Amino acid sequence: MSPTLAEIRAWDAADPLAGFKRRFVLPEGVIYLDGNSLGALPAAVASRVGATVSEEWGRSLIRGWNDHDWIGAPARVGAQIARLIGAKPHEVVVADSTSVNLFKLIVAAVACQAPRKTILAEPGNFPTDLYVAQGVAGLLDGVRLTTVTADKVLETIDGDTALVMLTHVHFKTGARHDMAAITARAHEVGALMLWDLCHSAGAIEVDLAAVGADLAVGCGYKYLNGGPGAPAFLYVAERLQGELASPLTGWMGHAAPFAFGDDYRPAAGIGRFLCGTPPVLGLAALECALEAFDGAPMAQIEAKGQRLCSLFIELVEDRCAGFGLTLVTPLDPAARGSHVSFAHPDGYPVMQALIDRGVIGDFRAPDVLRFGFTPLYLSFEDVWRAAETLREVLAEETWRAPRFQTRARVT
Amino acid sequence: MSPTLAEIRAWDAADPLAGFKRRFVLPEGVIYLDGNSLGALPAAVASRVGATVSEEWGRSLIRGWNDHDWIGAPARVGAQIARLIGAKPHEVVVADSTSVNLFKLIVAAVACQAPRKTILAEPGNFPTDLYVAQGVAGLLDGVRLTTVTADKVLETIDGDTALVMLTHVHFKTGARHDMAAITARAHEVGALMLWDLCHSAGAIEVDLAAVGADLAVGCGYKYLNGGPGAPAFLYVAERLQGELASPLTGWMGHAAPFAFGDDYRPAAGIGRFLCGTPPVLGLAALECALEAFDGAPMAQIEAKGQRLCSLFIELVEDRCAGFGLTLVTPLDPAARGSHVSFAHPDGYPVMQALIDRGVIGDFRAPDVLRFGFTPLYLSFEDVWRAAETLREVLAEETWRAPRFQTRARVT
Repeated sequence: MSPTLAEIRAWDAADPLAGFKRRFVLPEGVIYLDGNSLGALPAAVASRVGATVSEEWGRSLIRGWNDHDWIGAPARVGAQIARLIGAKPHEVVVADSTSVNLFKLIVAAVACQAPRKTILAEPGNFPTDLYVAQGVAGLLDGVRLTTVTADKVLETIDGDTALVMLTHVHFKTGARHDMAAITARAHEVGALMLWDLCHSAGAIEVDLAAVGADLAVGCGYKYLNGGPGAPAFLYVAERLQGELASPLTGWMGHAAPFAFGDDYRPAAGIGRFLCGTPPVLGLAALECALEAFDGAPMAQIEAKGQRLCSLFIELVEDRCAGFGLTLVTPLDPAARGSHVSFAHPDGYPVMQALIDRGVIGDFRAPDVLRFGFTPLYLSFEDVWRAAETLREVLAEETWRAPRFQTRARVT
Repeated sequence: MSPTLAEIRAWDAADPLAGFKRRFVLPEGVIYLDGNSLGALPAAVASRVGATVSEEWGRSLIRGWNDHDWIGAPARVGAQIARLIGAKPHEVVVADSTSVNLFKLIVAAVACQAPRKTILAEPGNFPTDLYVAQGVAGLLDGVRLTTVTADKVLETIDGDTALVMLTHVHFKTGARHDMAAITARAHEVGALMLWDLCHSAGAIEVDLAAVGADLAVGCGYKYLNGGPGAPAFLYVAERLQGELASPLTGWMGHAAPFAFGDDYRPAAGIGRFLCGTPPVLGLAALECALEAFDGAPMAQIEAKGQRLCSLFIELVEDRCAGFGLTLVTPLDPAARGSHVSFAHPDGYPVMQALIDRGVIGDFRAPDVLRFGFTPLYLSFEDVWRAAETLREVLAEETWRAPRFQTRARVT
């Protein structure tokens, strides 16, 4: 028997993170379950970005690089992310996109692992990870990408593996890899390990130091709420920073960018993984967005996220039985991230009908309904209302309306 | 004899672009001669970015990708830039930074030019261009970067040259290459030509179609006024788009990014040169900034820029004689871009003292004072006042004050 609304409201009343919802702008009548794709707008961001445009750029002009320390933003914001993923402040930098950062780290890792040539990943990983690795394999002599299903990863890592590259929490299923075990196995045979934290950072507890992680990348616009297309981050363990070289040797990664010399010389630390001029507006939004995490330990965020997900699963299994939904995400909270996926043969129109009623999740081909549970701005009652709306849409079959069948450009 | 202030004011009164100054926010008491490093804030940008944050991100959330066509922004804004550089709308896309775009195009060009292995550039080119080419040479077997001084470029291009890579207008000297002649020579021997338009786009007339250009990159935050760290652009001639492949095979360059398949398949057109998720805030600022060009043909912009530069040179040579300044920029307007550089043995403190009096140019090591003349927001009287202030600073030797001697982090 799933909990009653009265019980659920009592949970909200006792939730230490309940007040954090006020740090976000959420449209009236919307339950937003897609923070795993684009985080909601933190309330402070609009005025911060406005000040960056009007006060900083408008008044300081070129002097802003010094006067407002725009030049320090990639490292400064990186340090703020570091505290959310168990890294040291100088091990994380904000730059470029996740895809570009993957390229930098894959090439850097493979180069220092010669004669090993194999990049090991899993099929169905987030596409850009596989695509970028395929690009590297096409570029560098002998480098190859091998994919094995999640259950075969541990046994496949061997002395020929240069790099293991996995997404910590799977974008579609929500399944979580055992970061400690896989990293340990990689190290045991001398492989490097690259974790994609796109669906973990800001949602679940990640402790890169504790697992002895080598490399990681992650996204600024999902659970970190940095806004659409926010700059991404990358992590390189301190012990590897001197040894790894970015193939994208842009001027911002130079030891002395403003000496304007002709020869590239990489910066000493994590700064060598910068490339072009930092995107100041995007960095300002992300820096401000990260302040929404102040006072919320990641352990507490993860714990609430697990309860939100478990509640949703319980309510849906209880109240939407017989409507063709199949749970895709692991039931065990420790084996998943902060989103829940159900397969449905008519997943696309069902999600459109749900969005039409104000419950925003998303659809992932071929048949997955994806619901992200962001602990900072969702209440237990939101989960209850989302499950109820899903039940209505399925029971009333509103999703059969022709207007819900047409695919949007971005799904 | 240089013109009088009265004559100069008459020029402003007759200037068809005079009214464009109102399209920009310029701080009181400042004459901004650094639009070649960071363009001034267009007046419409603050509210546009504000709306993108509060209305689009805040209210539409994930739906913004479709509802506000964020997903189409790289191509849409690229098409707006195309009209300023003589390209077709579908030959330009906005993405990443200039450095990252250089990497994509250099690797793509070299890959399809095998067995040719030489990238030809000039020493003292903008550092990131050389650094990125060095990175490519370090990565790909046998690829080498050769640099020859500008006067030797034409005679050095030969059958071994895979790619010629030059900055159209030199960042330090302001000297302009003969784009038509060098492109023609490259084509004559089967080399590809990559133009860096960072100091040209939005400042001088560029006609990529007329010169039969192959490849180009450029910056969004200089004369295009897209804001600090604005996304950059790249151009690939239509005839080459099917043949060239980006090494940065991120999901946004995929033929069907939302099919989430495991195998990379490049998009058909210019879109294959996208990589990660587009930076929506930066794109919104840049798109809005480009509207400041509406109604100003590039030929008219260039003509005014040439007159601004010529006037500054004339005034400085006339009124600052004997103060140790040496003109670095060509006197012939057709041989330069839209900035003017003077060398001075105490260039750094002189520029600081000038900035202190509200005339903002910049300094480039070891001894160059750089003054950018942006036709859309500078008047001829601004030029007169800038030259006068420079004369005062030099005559009064205010630059000798200790506070002007300390180097800032970014110069």
